[in-house]
Amino acid sequence: MSGPAAVRPQPFEGGDLATFDALWSALAPIGRDPHTGGYRRIGFSAAVRACEAWFVAEASQRDLVVERDGNGNLLAWWRPEPERVDHGVITGSHLDSVPDGGAYDGALGVASALAAVDVLRQRGVRPARPLGIAVFAEEEGSRFGVACLGSKLMTGAIDPARAVVLHDAEGARLADVVDDGYGQAFGAGRQLGPSLELLRQPIAYVELHIEQGRGLADLGAPIGLASTIWAHGRWRFRFAGEGNHAGTTRMADRRDPMLTYAMTALAANKRARLAEAEAGGDGARATFGRVEVEPNAANAVPTAVTGCLDARAPTTDAVQRLVDDIHRQARDRAVRDGTTLTVTAESVTPAVDFDPGLRHRLAARLAARFGDVPVLATQAGHDAGILATAGVPTAMIFVRNPTGVSHSPAEHAEPDDCRAGVLALADALEELLVR
Amino acid sequence: MSGPAAVRPQPFEGGDLATFDALWSALAPIGRDPHTGGYRRIGFSAAVRACEAWFVAEASQRDLVVERDGNGNLLAWWRPEPERVDHGVITGSHLDSVPDGGAYDGALGVASALAAVDVLRQRGVRPARPLGIAVFAEEEGSRFGVACLGSKLMTGAIDPARAVVLHDAEGARLADVVDDGYGQAFGAGRQLGPSLELLRQPIAYVELHIEQGRGLADLGAPIGLASTIWAHGRWRFRFAGEGNHAGTTRMADRRDPMLTYAMTALAANKRARLAEAEAGGDGARATFGRVEVEPNAANAVPTAVTGCLDARAPTTDAVQRLVDDIHRQARDRAVRDGTTLTVTAESVTPAVDFDPGLRHRLAARLAARFGDVPVLATQAGHDAGILATAGVPTAMIFVRNPTGVSHSPAEHAEPDDCRAGVLALADALEELLVR
Repeated sequence: MSGPAAVRPQPFEGGDLATFDALWSALAPIGRDPHTGGYRRIGFSAAVRACEAWFVAEASQRDLVVERDGNGNLLAWWRPEPERVDHGVITGSHLDSVPDGGAYDGALGVASALAAVDVLRQRGVRPARPLGIAVFAEEEGSRFGVACLGSKLMTGAIDPARAVVLHDAEGARLADVVDDGYGQAFGAGRQLGPSLELLRQPIAYVELHIEQGRGLADLGAPIGLASTIWAHGRWRFRFAGEGNHAGTTRMADRRDPMLTYAMTALAANKRARLAEAEAGGDGARATFGRVEVEPNAANAVPTAVTGCLDARAPTTDAVQRLVDDIHRQARDRAVRDGTTLTVTAESVTPAVDFDPGLRHRLAARLAARFGDVPVLATQAGHDAGILATAGVPTAMIFVRNPTGVSHSPAEHAEPDDCRAGVLALADALEELLVR
Repeated sequence: MSGPAAVRPQPFEGGDLATFDALWSALAPIGRDPHTGGYRRIGFSAAVRACEAWFVAEASQRDLVVERDGNGNLLAWWRPEPERVDHGVITGSHLDSVPDGGAYDGALGVASALAAVDVLRQRGVRPARPLGIAVFAEEEGSRFGVACLGSKLMTGAIDPARAVVLHDAEGARLADVVDDGYGQAFGAGRQLGPSLELLRQPIAYVELHIEQGRGLADLGAPIGLASTIWAHGRWRFRFAGEGNHAGTTRMADRRDPMLTYAMTALAANKRARLAEAEAGGDGARATFGRVEVEPNAANAVPTAVTGCLDARAPTTDAVQRLVDDIHRQARDRAVRDGTTLTVTAESVTPAVDFDPGLRHRLAARLAARFGDVPVLATQAGHDAGILATAGVPTAMIFVRNPTGVSHSPAEHAEPDDCRAGVLALADALEELLVR
């Protein structure tokens, strides 16, 4: 993280932000749960289709040409005159959410991109390159269990043969829901699989996203730039014991996998807290947020408990050490409990370093409006990380999150910070489009 | 628990047990999961219907008259000549199982009752009173969440107005599935609700059941009699925290209810183990076997975790102290974790003392064949407990379980012990029927 940004008044010059407010208001009700206020924009659901319809309508109103690949990813193009189709700049994000997620994660990047086009046109900017606004499919992985599914398919980071057999909790196959309702519109009907050619050799991908921690809030800065994405992954810890009657089985006779799981969840937390304290801030994360119990009956000692460990650290080595430590403690406890443990790595993503040249260029441009812009690591996976790994020069702009809360109905960004984000994105795109 | 039984050879005199073996073989395949070897005889399911069809066919073959109440409970009557319908003896058990349960829990009592009729007839016993073989519906509560549902409805222990709105995980209503497929047969088509008059003022209910602990195995005895059912109940512990992103939320900033749950599950186990050690054997049981996580996503700190505590102890006071202690530790930890805790008692069943006069009479009779029969408390709920609470003089005969494992595919009883159980039940019924 770089030094604190100079706190200066936001002038909001160089762009009418009324269109952003209108875009945001129109999107806000779609997929919102009336009870929690959270969002249920689950990949390829009716709610996501409605968000996409909003996007297509807004893009068409701006004379942007919409394309779609076989993976459900959308692209809306603003092409220069005289027309040029390649070596453009891509921006955008995603419109899906985790179950009961917040309004900003993903959607803010898409709405800001549309608003940034309005700002650039108001400024009379005549782009020398195409600008593509991307909406990546199923970024959260809430439906098919693979995070950044759309961008991973686009870049070939996931084998289409593996993706084609993915199915959701109700048994629906990815291949069947991707095109549902689109027919041949925008190029739908293609096969699942690599489609990076759709981006046409971009010189940069710039994704605006709400920050999902409190880094900018602590620094008093409305926007920031990303340095890296931490290494992260998911490990399945399956504890097996002996299913038995909860009433008649003596405590001393049990082999209860719930106990081994419970101790492991506490140990994981303790280990990551220690790493955090040693680092004086961001050291590591370890979370058991998903648990499956067999048979999950109130009157039965479980046969098996499976917990999913989400672990993250600044480097791939550090995350492996973290998981190894937790694994060792779990194994020791399993011996005491008479249970057995199987650990399976489900996905392990190495750390991503965003393009330093691109970051320095954008930092220099943004300094004119924002002063010294903080540069932060992020612990969250993003489509930007997938594109960076595929070789696209990539940058991320973060918008301040006053509480750091995300993946929750309480996720929030102040309207003025969102507007600052639109101007920052417009400035960054102008920097890249006109030269 | 009384002193150890004299270990003596089982003579297997006084009855041809071939019919028991045939009954058991015919029932064994119904509802068995080919992968686990466990049983999925879930209340009112097709598998239970098939078990009931087996029962009705076997009863009819024995000229027993089958009746059915409005709650799905079946009764097969052997009436004396000259005919008498009241002040009979009831035996039986249930045919449903927990998901992936064992073959013996419930079914052994029903098959043994049919075989005992054969034994009594071979002996030339002419009953002075009717004998009714009962099959109680949904004893395990696996489908509608209420244990001993059939016997509770029969005795009025559960309000029919509460039962009529019960629904299963798929939304099917109890009222709609009870009569499904029976039309008006055996008195089907009646309303849910009290039906104790169907038993016609019995002088005794005697239920044979596989033991669900290792009491008889430790004593080297093939059969035993029940003294009491422990007080037991279910308490819902709901831990609420703050849903958040598993990657970006610093460890120190979390309010993670999974931690409070995990510590509580460990504390409950420790507290019950301590009570057990202090009692030098059976002191208390505490189990968290069912957990629900919201939103149960791998990359989200949970919003809430709900665990169901199954707690049991010899007396109602002791179980309340156990739950209070666990509650206090959970509350203390919640303060540390920044979470909140709500505890709701879902069902609390006081201890049941079985009729001592009936037990002594049966013990005296069984001593002729088995010597001194052990008398054990049970920690499991049974239809016998419901009938005892409703004022029916009640006894239970347990059959040795060599490992104590129950509610699991590994539940087992040796064939010779099952045959000893049939003879014990025949002896007990003869004792009660001829005087």
